[in-house]
Amino acid sequence: MSGTSFLSDMLQGITERGRALFFAGPRARDAAAELDISTLCDMLLSSRGEASGMAIAAEILDRWSRLDAGEAADFLKMLARGFGADPARLERAIDRYRTEKSPASVIALHEAAEPRRQELLRRLNLAPNGTERLVRMREQLLAIKAGDADLGAVDLDFAHLFGSWFNRGFLTLQPIDWSTPAHILEKIIRYEAVHEIAGWDELRRRLQPSDRRCFAFFHPRLKDEPLVFVEVALTRGVPAAIADLLDEGRAPIAADQATTAVFYSISNCQDGLRGISFGNFLIKQVVEDLRRDLPGLKTFVTLSPVPGFAGWLSSARRSEAGLGLGEADMALLERLGDPAWAGDATLAGALEPVLLSLAARYFLVERTATGRPLDPVARFHLGNGARLERLNFLGDRSPKALAQAHGLMVNYLYKLEDIEANHEALAQRGEVTAAPAVTALLGREKDMRRSLPAMPARAARAAN
Amino acid sequence: MSGTSFLSDMLQGITERGRALFFAGPRARDAAAELDISTLCDMLLSSRGEASGMAIAAEILDRWSRLDAGEAADFLKMLARGFGADPARLERAIDRYRTEKSPASVIALHEAAEPRRQELLRRLNLAPNGTERLVRMREQLLAIKAGDADLGAVDLDFAHLFGSWFNRGFLTLQPIDWSTPAHILEKIIRYEAVHEIAGWDELRRRLQPSDRRCFAFFHPRLKDEPLVFVEVALTRGVPAAIADLLDEGRAPIAADQATTAVFYSISNCQDGLRGISFGNFLIKQVVEDLRRDLPGLKTFVTLSPVPGFAGWLSSARRSEAGLGLGEADMALLERLGDPAWAGDATLAGALEPVLLSLAARYFLVERTATGRPLDPVARFHLGNGARLERLNFLGDRSPKALAQAHGLMVNYLYKLEDIEANHEALAQRGEVTAAPAVTALLGREKDMRRSLPAMPARAARAAN
Amino acid sequence: MSGTSFLSDMLQGITERGRALFFAGPRARDAAAELDISTLCDMLLSSRGEASGMAIAAEILDRWSRLDAGEAADFLKMLARGFGADPARLERAIDRYRTEKSPASVIALHEAAEPRRQELLRRLNLAPNGTERLVRMREQLLAIKAGDADLGAVDLDFAHLFGSWFNRGFLTLQPIDWSTPAHILEKIIRYEAVHEIAGWDELRRRLQPSDRRCFAFFHPRLKDEPLVFVEVALTRGVPAAIADLLDEGRAPIAADQATTAVFYSISNCQDGLRGISFGNFLIKQVVEDLRRDLPGLKTFVTLSPVPGFAGWLSSARRSEAGLGLGEADMALLERLGDPAWAGDATLAGALEPVLLSLAARYFLVERTATGRPLDPVARFHLGNGARLERLNFLGDRSPKALAQAHGLMVNYLYKLEDIEANHEALAQRGEVTAAPAVTALLGREKDMRRSLPAMPARAARAAN
Amino acid sequence: MSGTSFLSDMLQGITERGRALFFAGPRARDAAAELDISTLCDMLLSSRGEASGMAIAAEILDRWSRLDAGEAADFLKMLARGFGADPARLERAIDRYRTEKSPASVIALHEAAEPRRQELLRRLNLAPNGTERLVRMREQLLAIKAGDADLGAVDLDFAHLFGSWFNRGFLTLQPIDWSTPAHILEKIIRYEAVHEIAGWDELRRRLQPSDRRCFAFFHPRLKDEPLVFVEVALTRGVPAAIADLLDEGRAPIAADQATTAVFYSISNCQDGLRGISFGNFLIKQVVEDLRRDLPGLKTFVTLSPVPGFAGWLSSARRSEAGLGLGEADMALLERLGDPAWAGDATLAGALEPVLLSLAARYFLVERTATGRPLDPVARFHLGNGARLERLNFLGDRSPKALAQAHGLMVNYLYKLEDIEANHEALAQRGEVTAAPAVTALLGREKDMRRSLPAMPARAARAAN
Repeated sequence: MSGTSFLSDMLQGITERGRALFFAGPRARDAAAELDISTLCDMLLSSRGEASGMAIAAEILDRWSRLDAGEAADFLKMLARGFGADPARLERAIDRYRTEKSPASVIALHEAAEPRRQELLRRLNLAPNGTERLVRMREQLLAIKAGDADLGAVDLDFAHLFGSWFNRGFLTLQPIDWSTPAHILEKIIRYEAVHEIAGWDELRRRLQPSDRRCFAFFHPRLKDEPLVFVEVALTRGVPAAIADLLDEGRAPIAADQATTAVFYSISNCQDGLRGISFGNFLIKQVVEDLRRDLPGLKTFVTLSPVPGFAGWLSSARRSEAGLGLGEADMALLERLGDPAWAGDATLAGALEPVLLSLAARYFLVERTATGRPLDPVARFHLGNGARLERLNFLGDRSPKALAQAHGLMVNYLYKLEDIEANHEALAQRGEVTAAPAVTALLGREKDMRRSLPAMPARAARAAN
Repeated sequence: MSGTSFLSDMLQGITERGRALFFAGPRARDAAAELDISTLCDMLLSSRGEASGMAIAAEILDRWSRLDAGEAADFLKMLARGFGADPARLERAIDRYRTEKSPASVIALHEAAEPRRQELLRRLNLAPNGTERLVRMREQLLAIKAGDADLGAVDLDFAHLFGSWFNRGFLTLQPIDWSTPAHILEKIIRYEAVHEIAGWDELRRRLQPSDRRCFAFFHPRLKDEPLVFVEVALTRGVPAAIADLLDEGRAPIAADQATTAVFYSISNCQDGLRGISFGNFLIKQVVEDLRRDLPGLKTFVTLSPVPGFAGWLSSARRSEAGLGLGEADMALLERLGDPAWAGDATLAGALEPVLLSLAARYFLVERTATGRPLDPVARFHLGNGARLERLNFLGDRSPKALAQAHGLMVNYLYKLEDIEANHEALAQRGEVTAAPAVTALLGREKDMRRSLPAMPARAARAAN
Repeated sequence: MSGTSFLSDMLQGITERGRALFFAGPRARDAAAELDISTLCDMLLSSRGEASGMAIAAEILDRWSRLDAGEAADFLKMLARGFGADPARLERAIDRYRTEKSPASVIALHEAAEPRRQELLRRLNLAPNGTERLVRMREQLLAIKAGDADLGAVDLDFAHLFGSWFNRGFLTLQPIDWSTPAHILEKIIRYEAVHEIAGWDELRRRLQPSDRRCFAFFHPRLKDEPLVFVEVALTRGVPAAIADLLDEGRAPIAADQATTAVFYSISNCQDGLRGISFGNFLIKQVVEDLRRDLPGLKTFVTLSPVPGFAGWLSSARRSEAGLGLGEADMALLERLGDPAWAGDATLAGALEPVLLSLAARYFLVERTATGRPLDPVARFHLGNGARLERLNFLGDRSPKALAQAHGLMVNYLYKLEDIEANHEALAQRGEVTAAPAVTALLGREKDMRRSLPAMPARAARAAN
Repeated sequence: MSGTSFLSDMLQGITERGRALFFAGPRARDAAAELDISTLCDMLLSSRGEASGMAIAAEILDRWSRLDAGEAADFLKMLARGFGADPARLERAIDRYRTEKSPASVIALHEAAEPRRQELLRRLNLAPNGTERLVRMREQLLAIKAGDADLGAVDLDFAHLFGSWFNRGFLTLQPIDWSTPAHILEKIIRYEAVHEIAGWDELRRRLQPSDRRCFAFFHPRLKDEPLVFVEVALTRGVPAAIADLLDEGRAPIAADQATTAVFYSISNCQDGLRGISFGNFLIKQVVEDLRRDLPGLKTFVTLSPVPGFAGWLSSARRSEAGLGLGEADMALLERLGDPAWAGDATLAGALEPVLLSLAARYFLVERTATGRPLDPVARFHLGNGARLERLNFLGDRSPKALAQAHGLMVNYLYKLEDIEANHEALAQRGEVTAAPAVTALLGREKDMRRSLPAMPARAARAAN
């Protein structure tokens, strides 16, 4: 990553000079101090000299970095309201286009309709650490944009530009292991979002054994900052419980003895890049790399949480329509209120078939208003073309997992040959591809409910 | 550059798989063979799966690379005519905007006005070697676009996208020296555009001595391809003739003895990136780097050709208005027709004042219709904020230089503190900044012509 | 360090093949199993084929690595008794030399007198990880050699060969910082021998701040194993107490604001390399590097423990000759028995002059039987040519330091211009170079004892 | 190789300081100028300070580098005569040993018998570029040592030390290709010793095609200097003629289509390292690496010159014993005097069986006085355990090859499984392993000579 570092130094050098040119002398400084940040943004948009442009950009971002929360929100609103397309220019462009339907008039219209802040963001991006700061700026934006159409438009501009700047062609995949620099590793600890890493000793247990792997995507302009990473366990079968994978006392196996690669944690690191999808590409690339290095690997599968399951179940139980369950089952579900249920083998045994058939319904039948799976993790993996392979009752007994998913974990299977077809089935026909054993769980549910699912799973259709 | 190489391998891997998915089986192949390239482009624009998208993109570029010149032109015309904005959608967007002036309606209008080929090019860019191939595609476009408004619009799209992809933030500056890999060095030989490099021995003379430097910009997605490079001589004074710099027999000086860095050759390497400016940034960066490494360097100056001078002089002599010279001078200028004049000391001595004052006028007074300097090299350096420092009579006695510039060479001075002001003076007021000695040459010219220059040079104004 | 890793893989590959050649088939294995390790050593010495030699070497080291402590001692004794010079051959060589005093007969004598185990160790060294394993082997040897002349001779062979293999020309200096790979950093934690590093957070505090540096020597054949490292604090003055340097709450200064580099911890990492001196070279190299990178650094100094002081003082108090102190002072010294003294300001104030003058005597006057300073750390730094700069009363209040040195720390000053002269003064005349303030402390001591030191310090001599 | 470069800088830095210490001030310089080089050598041997030792070593090597040929020879003779073992000390050590046969007395004897120049060379080696300069020094020694027993003893010391310093464990194998730095590549051009490389274009033809490889060994202290390199062609069969391999017009094949790797040129680069064998190890390592990267490779073979064949044949024809050929054959051999014979198909056809059977005898039957193959290239490959696979009549029609070997080339086969056995057969029983087809050529020769070879080839024995 020294290239990036070198580049940063270089940009720093140029900008400090530019800044000196721009605000030369004490009077100039005073003058600059009187300019407000929106005036500086206007100046940046109209500047033509490279060095002065970079100086203004750096000044804007420096000021921005010192804003408190309220001021930062005001700054974003200023972008929203003051740096949209120029209405008068847009009107003229429309008029011209209606008069003369030439390529030139379309281009002029396209340019006139572009919010001015897009060019503003492009120029801010050239300042030292500009990309990183704009990612932070969007973090702030995401936190406050809800329900504000103007801020929503600003976010579209960010998303459009980030989609271009974080284009997959620029991402580099790096293995993360125990020989990775410590300042990267501490970010892995910090950013792990699925199964917390308690400290350096646990980190080492996830990276150093012969049957563990980790990979991250990096971007040349976000120095030493992973964008997304995945933790992988190499095993001899598809695991059903996270505790087995993370067991401190387990005996590692040799990598070339493994038949299965388990993606057990995928974490996005940069909130400001939300919606700019890398995870999809990351998994496919890691599958390719692992397959090449370890030809013994035949199965690529996740062990994933189901963060939306308990919430859905709770809503569904309280809903008018109800779950269509019998009284006995509903009574059993009441017992979930006390987390101690998981330790009561008899009770857990009774709950297992009920919860599993409800989970099958949650994945295979229920949909959002726009026809997508309810579970966010399911949306990610199924949208990538994975298959819902297995439901694991009490796969995770941690308090968090019991609260979010009544302990449920699932495996999604990545079979490269089927990915495209699975993806298309979901995208075009709304069908979730699932293993027959998962689909079969619906049967019991159907019996209970006597109502057919509106959107059957693919395997279910095939099986019926 | 191994990162890039790794990335290429990766992209290759994924695309071959995607291609397999897409054209699986012999029948699929036959089917694909029947699809024409414009159908494939439509498919690419409508594809949603990542792997199949990359497969189609790779297929399009593979087909394109096998097109002959006529077919390639047809392909570009197809992009021009078939992949502009959708008129019906654009009309609807205009109507909506006129009804409801919301951020959403502006965005919709902006998107509707974007030529569809922009997204097409973005998707082609993700194919293996996509960026490189699109650069080659634009080379073809530049060769045929003249006078065709539709192709001109296509070129605007290329330029817009390249401006974003070749954003300075992605460029890396690399020193080029005798320890640089041979496959890069052979490109330096090939791309040198100013003073030809006759072979490896001459290359070594330009790279290896202690008083020589060379730097190039590279881009992560154009593997091992320099974008632009500059050759530098470290000297003890501002040189007046290229032969002195390139003399095989000269004794190199120690780098830390040098006071002056001379940029004597700047070559753009990629025709397809014409108009995407890097040279400006390159020079400033090299000045910064050299200054840091060699604190003894005080002066940064070019030794540059004047490729437009002889052409302008010839036109001006033949023009109605004439040059306003006396008969004796005009007779002297007749002698330029025989290149042997340069070897005739008496004749050369007589021509020197005439040519130099004409050159001063060429640089300081004459302008293009849009108010810019006539000479293309002058436009580059003066536009960067350099100062016209000295005119060197018979600075280059090569046939090419005698033909293009009657042997004239000039020095442009890069003084970082003044660059911004010089740039602004030219950009906003059309003033060329020149050393007093250059401006003074106008005096004689003025006396001869008895007419004041319309756009005086800055130094001239100061001097008067 | 990938070169080393590649090399290891390569050696591994060749040896496994060689081993296959050597012990091909089940019968061969049985046969090999019956060979004892000393037979294998004989075979290795007589083998001429490269691959089979490496196979035997690997087999010997594999067997050796599985020996228990007693067996390992037997192995070393076998080397001592069975692999010395061949007496018969040596007699013949002596006879020949006495007959014919030619270069050839001297060479033959030299070869005949070389213990056969030297060549044996050279050949073992070529096995995969051979160097590392031989370092471990010498660790075992050092643990048991005391008083055994035969084992002492084996150790001389190890020391001779290690001196050649760990020749300074092969060592590479690497900065250790927070971007160093974690598997190296955990060794820094483990090997720190002076001021314990409690964990990763403390490690970061020693590496990451702008005013901290760390450097280590590595060797190409000891993969990822530091040989010796030094921790450096950049400060604005010479520190008197370790707690100030390691204070968690201190505010770091900018590196270019520092005037002083403090070497506050130097740790040898490999017990098996005891006596193969790197630390000397390490410090001088680090001084050179820091001086180049941070021209503001003017003073290079240690903050060092005095591990032998309390032991010497205790012996001296109990010795017949005594310390020549008055009763009051002797009574004060009794108080040192309770470590709480350090917290009693009055008592500490009374002890300070007594302890400091005794310390001056410990450093400047007392000597080992061979005329060297008593303190091992002093022997190292003074032997390197450093000057004893200052005695710091209660510089380290940790229990370990109170026990070993009654809390005393000292600064040794490295002034490159004087190093050679200081070194020679000690080596040739037994004189310790010390700052006048240290020498002056002797004065009080002299008054008390009324006896002149036998070997005066240099500065003292100059002062008198 | 930056590590080495860094190291050089470091050593340079220290030595310049040391030199300053040593020869401080103008008077010191004058004094030093009066010391002769042998006094400096004595000083180096007795110096104890590190910096002053390095300064003296650097001074000695600087002086040495300015010596003319005669003075350099005197310097070597001084090492021979003035820096052997000290006879008095050696006598005392012998006496002590005869009195007391302890480990200590053997060690003392061993040390006393070591020529003092060994330690001198070790200390010179620590000077900047010391290793490189000592390699050059031995080059000079090899040129003059013939017949001088004292210089022969000096060479033994060089060989002993170089054997240790250039220990295989320190060598790194680097692929050489078209992306290798130019300053390394120009050394490949310069050092190629078998089939001359005419310039950069030919070099590219040997490195860049998909079916070409080149590998070199480097050493960390000989910066950017290859020690030995091998050029490899990847083919679909065992080639019989060098012209086919080097044909400019040939169509390269894909590397993964190749079945055979042909080592067609192996060049030692450093004359001063003569006798320090790397080539053996190089070939085996390259076989391993190629086999891993290109599993399609099944055959590893050389295409080698036979530099001693014509010389031997000429001697044998003139010898008393004669070749035992008939008159017709002897007359045919006369025709070899005119190199045009190779172009005369009829004549060549008649010569082929005669030359091939003589060649079989040259390889399989004839031996040096010490029982080794006559041909130096054969000694190398057969000594490595290769098998003589095929004799190629007119494999090389170049004037050099016609003069040295009547155009003969041979293939040596490297089969890793047999290498050890082949090597032992030659080393212990003097048997050359050859393919049956080669051995069969002896049959005709035997018929002609009616005398059995004294040392039959292995394959021949098996076949009979």
